[in-house]
Amino acid sequence: MQRRQRLKQSEKKKYQDKQVDVLEVLREHGAKIYRDLEDGQFPKFSIPSRSVSNIVYDKRLRQYILGSAATQRNSRNSSQLRSFTQLIWLAFFANRLTQEKKSSTLRDVYYSSQAFAVEFDDQSESDNIIVDLEAVTSKPREDFHIFPEERSSIFGDLDIEYTIPGYEGKKMNLSNHPDGYSIGPSLTTAELVDTSAEIVIAIEKGGLFTRFVEEQVDKKFKSIIINTGGQAPRSTRTLLKRLHDELSLPIIVLTDGDVYGEHIAMVIKSGSANAAHLRELTVPDAKWVGVWATDIEKYNLPTIPMTESDIKRCHDLKKDPRYESGIWKKELEVFLRIKRKAELEAFSKYGLTNITDKYLPPKLELAKSL
Amino acid sequence: MQRRQRLKQSEKKKYQDKQVDVLEVLREHGAKIYRDLEDGQFPKFSIPSRSVSNIVYDKRLRQYILGSAATQRNSRNSSQLRSFTQLIWLAFFANRLTQEKKSSTLRDVYYSSQAFAVEFDDQSESDNIIVDLEAVTSKPREDFHIFPEERSSIFGDLDIEYTIPGYEGKKMNLSNHPDGYSIGPSLTTAELVDTSAEIVIAIEKGGLFTRFVEEQVDKKFKSIIINTGGQAPRSTRTLLKRLHDELSLPIIVLTDGDVYGEHIAMVIKSGSANAAHLRELTVPDAKWVGVWATDIEKYNLPTIPMTESDIKRCHDLKKDPRYESGIWKKELEVFLRIKRKAELEAFSKYGLTNITDKYLPPKLELAKSL
Repeated sequence: MQRRQRLKQSEKKKYQDKQVDVLEVLREHGAKIYRDLEDGQFPKFSIPSRSVSNIVYDKRLRQYILGSAATQRNSRNSSQLRSFTQLIWLAFFANRLTQEKKSSTLRDVYYSSQAFAVEFDDQSESDNIIVDLEAVTSKPREDFHIFPEERSSIFGDLDIEYTIPGYEGKKMNLSNHPDGYSIGPSLTTAELVDTSAEIVIAIEKGGLFTRFVEEQVDKKFKSIIINTGGQAPRSTRTLLKRLHDELSLPIIVLTDGDVYGEHIAMVIKSGSANAAHLRELTVPDAKWVGVWATDIEKYNLPTIPMTESDIKRCHDLKKDPRYESGIWKKELEVFLRIKRKAELEAFSKYGLTNITDKYLPPKLELAKSL
Repeated sequence: MQRRQRLKQSEKKKYQDKQVDVLEVLREHGAKIYRDLEDGQFPKFSIPSRSVSNIVYDKRLRQYILGSAATQRNSRNSSQLRSFTQLIWLAFFANRLTQEKKSSTLRDVYYSSQAFAVEFDDQSESDNIIVDLEAVTSKPREDFHIFPEERSSIFGDLDIEYTIPGYEGKKMNLSNHPDGYSIGPSLTTAELVDTSAEIVIAIEKGGLFTRFVEEQVDKKFKSIIINTGGQAPRSTRTLLKRLHDELSLPIIVLTDGDVYGEHIAMVIKSGSANAAHLRELTVPDAKWVGVWATDIEKYNLPTIPMTESDIKRCHDLKKDPRYESGIWKKELEVFLRIKRKAELEAFSKYGLTNITDKYLPPKLELAKSL
């Protein structure tokens, strides 16, 4: 098998360079505070508004974005002094994490604030300030070393090179441990070096991930397989975006055949409204290839009746502009007509390898034309 | 660093041999059915009773076990014919999975039954029959290739050798991917070859797992680090037992400082009442080293008030014979006195590396004497 160097250097920004960017952005915000003080002004931050009225769907970017409204955190206003101080402290702490290359979590940040006598009532208050800093800097919090707790996993012929301290420059191929490699800070920040894969298959469940590895879907279909473990964690969405953008790999998503599965695929594709200030978590070209409501009928799958809450969810999503056309709209309508859902494992009715032998190949073909 | 071969061949049973055992047990049960038929008898199964009245705590084994009561599934009794048939089919299907070395999940088994027109009302009915087969054979379902969906992860200097098809005989060292290696079927069934580690640290949370790897706890304290991701999945408990029994490694458990954390450690140590028919999921020598209620006071940790349900849970556990003595009893009492709890991340109040630099070393010392 010929190993192809898929790197497109022009489109690829080295992780190390991105870190320099973050530090520069933080330094610039800090410098502005000093300039305000030197000019005899009360220092302030302008933060893009994250209120519902300022969140709009952008058809060109194919995701939600923030409009032009902004809110102020002005140290002159005593009611804003608390959140202004919290944001300044967080920028300081983020700078330190990034320079020292230490990883942390949302919860770590909350407790770390106590070392500095910076007051947060609870973690939700500090979480909110962290999202403010994302909005101010237009950088995801992972760039300043605040990583999610959740772990999903990856398997396939992909060479990476770590950038984290202690492992810098070490190379790794992700096809030797069949249970998969956890996707955490070291993998999301690694350089993606090269691959022989031609597609990435993201699948909702651990059991199916194992089946796909066991049936050598990685080799038979030249693919990288990712277990999203339900709704894909941010780190997994970041990695999916990087695999798409940096290695030009198409991304397909396989979920349970229900409204929640459809939305898992949509979130990978276009993110969520509460991350409208970011661009790093979406893969607009990602394709949902199944299990569709129409597959339930086509393959005569064993089904479970939809609950009232499933049906309500369908109606809610019909109002979402992302579900206005194409398969997104069509499949929602079929779910509402048949009022039944099916799990990925339902294909086991036809034998354990039916899903990889019979269902997957035509879906891979179809993905090329979607 | 000298690499020590820690294998004790006498205590170690090769995975391949265990598989032969399973197939023999299944064949023996099948043969008995045929003998019954040839003798003109209605075939039947005797199943150790899993009713509450037959579950007793065994002080010597330090876990719950089943008493001597048994229930019958007799094909003569028309009310038992359904569950008798389901159990026969499951034994047949388990035999096939094991011979073909295919992995499956509880859910897969439920849907697979439909290929054979064997009726289960829902997955909970088939799950229950799977536990019956465990009880009949005294084998955990993983031995007949029914694996859990959940994935936790491991990191450290451990050499393993895979036994699953396609990877048989391939060796792997688990210290090169700092985000950790997923613990799934291929790792739970691998031969554990050797290690330089002298202890296993199981930790409740992904963020802390990353911190421990980042701070090189594996190297500084010659340890293997396992992220249980909350309550440890069965595959992780199986692996912990094997690391203890086959490689003579002590196991310590670090959890949040609350009643649920204490119970996460207890389940690793002594299993749960609903797995009283199994011995493969417990590590009676596992030690819970923190975060203790007394640590909350000793280290003056930031706390959260216990909820009514936390307090009720403490009172429930006080009635459990496993919480009758030692730190298990003492810490429950302190939780009830202070009515506050603390998370592992609370140590970040003293800096992100306080937990690995200051808290962990005395706990590791203490573990030797517990």
